[in-house]
Amino acid sequence: MPTDTNRQWILRSRPDGEPTMENFELREEPIPEPGPNEVLVRTRYMSVDPYMRGRMRDAESYANPWTIGDPMRARVVGEVVESNDSSHRSGDIVTGNLYWAEYATAPGAVLDRVETGSAPISTALHILGMPGLTAYVGTVEVGHVKPGDTVVVSGAAGAVGSVAGQIARIAGCRVVGIAGSEEKTEWLTDELGFDAAVDYNDDEFHAELARASPNGVDLYFENVGGEVSDAVLDRLNDYSRVAVCGKISLYNLDPDDERMRGPRRLYQRTRTRVEGFIVSDHDHIAPQATERLSRWVESEQLHYRESVRDGIESAPEAFLGLFEGENIGKQLVSM
Amino acid sequence: MPTDTNRQWILRSRPDGEPTMENFELREEPIPEPGPNEVLVRTRYMSVDPYMRGRMRDAESYANPWTIGDPMRARVVGEVVESNDSSHRSGDIVTGNLYWAEYATAPGAVLDRVETGSAPISTALHILGMPGLTAYVGTVEVGHVKPGDTVVVSGAAGAVGSVAGQIARIAGCRVVGIAGSEEKTEWLTDELGFDAAVDYNDDEFHAELARASPNGVDLYFENVGGEVSDAVLDRLNDYSRVAVCGKISLYNLDPDDERMRGPRRLYQRTRTRVEGFIVSDHDHIAPQATERLSRWVESEQLHYRESVRDGIESAPEAFLGLFEGENIGKQLVSM
Repeated sequence: MPTDTNRQWILRSRPDGEPTMENFELREEPIPEPGPNEVLVRTRYMSVDPYMRGRMRDAESYANPWTIGDPMRARVVGEVVESNDSSHRSGDIVTGNLYWAEYATAPGAVLDRVETGSAPISTALHILGMPGLTAYVGTVEVGHVKPGDTVVVSGAAGAVGSVAGQIARIAGCRVVGIAGSEEKTEWLTDELGFDAAVDYNDDEFHAELARASPNGVDLYFENVGGEVSDAVLDRLNDYSRVAVCGKISLYNLDPDDERMRGPRRLYQRTRTRVEGFIVSDHDHIAPQATERLSRWVESEQLHYRESVRDGIESAPEAFLGLFEGENIGKQLVSM
Repeated sequence: MPTDTNRQWILRSRPDGEPTMENFELREEPIPEPGPNEVLVRTRYMSVDPYMRGRMRDAESYANPWTIGDPMRARVVGEVVESNDSSHRSGDIVTGNLYWAEYATAPGAVLDRVETGSAPISTALHILGMPGLTAYVGTVEVGHVKPGDTVVVSGAAGAVGSVAGQIARIAGCRVVGIAGSEEKTEWLTDELGFDAAVDYNDDEFHAELARASPNGVDLYFENVGGEVSDAVLDRLNDYSRVAVCGKISLYNLDPDDERMRGPRRLYQRTRTRVEGFIVSDHDHIAPQATERLSRWVESEQLHYRESVRDGIESAPEAFLGLFEGENIGKQLVSM
């Protein structure tokens, strides 16, 4: 709710292993004033994403680490409250890379008008935003999804995985999701149209996965890493592809942790191609992909779900919950 | 030397771990008679290759396993002794997939005339044959070698690795070879023109590799697997590629062996692409590749070396020596 103050989360310290509340500090400051060509945005929805764990680390990554004492960054959908930039007006809904904050100023040029058609504005943070584009890039551009493929998606009930599986379904594949609860697996099969979904907590996980992929695996959309992935990698077919979107189960592990060791794989016999990708390298296909995703959402070929926590104060719990698999669909923070 | 009998090696039993002489049996039989459209070939050179270890196994692979009690197969260069096929004449030098044997009959259609230009006929089994083509495919087609890349080749003094590194050198790369003795590393730098070569038995191996690749690694041509590879994989740059030609250090290990476990890798941050390949999938580029390899051999841009054992009786030792790194350049058996 609008007040005179702006609350925002600061990176207080870097996590050692699993992040804790000690790593975050909620700071109150006056609402900032927009400078020339700047816009003041009130956050309506803020995205928390697994990649943020990498930004909390003090190590080289594909983006610079966050600085201790600085506000933490996030993709946000918000409302323009005040504008000194001719391309944005008060009341406009915009999206941009802003902060874990109730308010933020930014140059108008780095904000995009939210165009979701008939979909809710929050979808600009998932199915019609970066996670949806990531799913498209991973399946289509990196994974070269083909009709008739058996496609396995781990983290299948997450913001990216749930879209990746549905794109594969639209592409004429047999789609198998892996997730961590019965509620999730039921959502995948009953609402999203996955052909099968397997719970990795199930004692019979390996056997269930084999039953769900009787002809082996042609494309594995990798979100989790670790032993869940091992089960899939054991089933790869000739000319199989592994699109490495992320490995959330490894992000909080120390390099010396025993769980950071796993089976060495040959990959040669099956001519498997394993490829790590980052969505921002594929910006050139964003317009085409977003147009298709929008169309599929409108025609109800693509479904989504949001897990929403309310209030800026809940942002760290929302983020930490990602590593516990608490979210179904996209985890958001509303305010 | 020609006699009335033909000696050939039979697969007596499947190895459990490292192959031993117990797995092989030398059988004497009369020299076979060529049937209609068949040719009798006297072996001059026989190739032993790491991939043969997979054929000794009773497991699905990209080619059928050898059958116990059957003659073992090998690529051979030999002389036509008798021909019932109009396309081959007595005295012709041919190559084909024949046997670990002094003599063999085969349909004329499966034998190719050896055309090595001015190079010795044995080169049809390495630099101008399958190993040379494998090196070309791995660097050019799978590895997308680019001028300015730092290319690391393991098994660099072997039949494939030595050619792969030289192709990368011709392609304008900084080339670093990894091999297992000073004699080998000196050969790589002094005769083959590698920019650097590192001995994996060196106590300072990791530090030496870092010194040899100060700007990281763009392309890794993988022949060995295991801890030697780990050292390279730790140095991969953004957009790096790993062309997986083989992992000889793992072929004799039981899946439960502790050495079959290694660090889990993310590959996403660096957008690394790891791709297993098999040369026979790339037959369409064989004519072009072979023409280029021949030209480079003639112009002395490509060098090679052979390790030759004499006599059919030495074939198993020649094969087993591959796993001990005994060969420098191509291991052959002459007869």
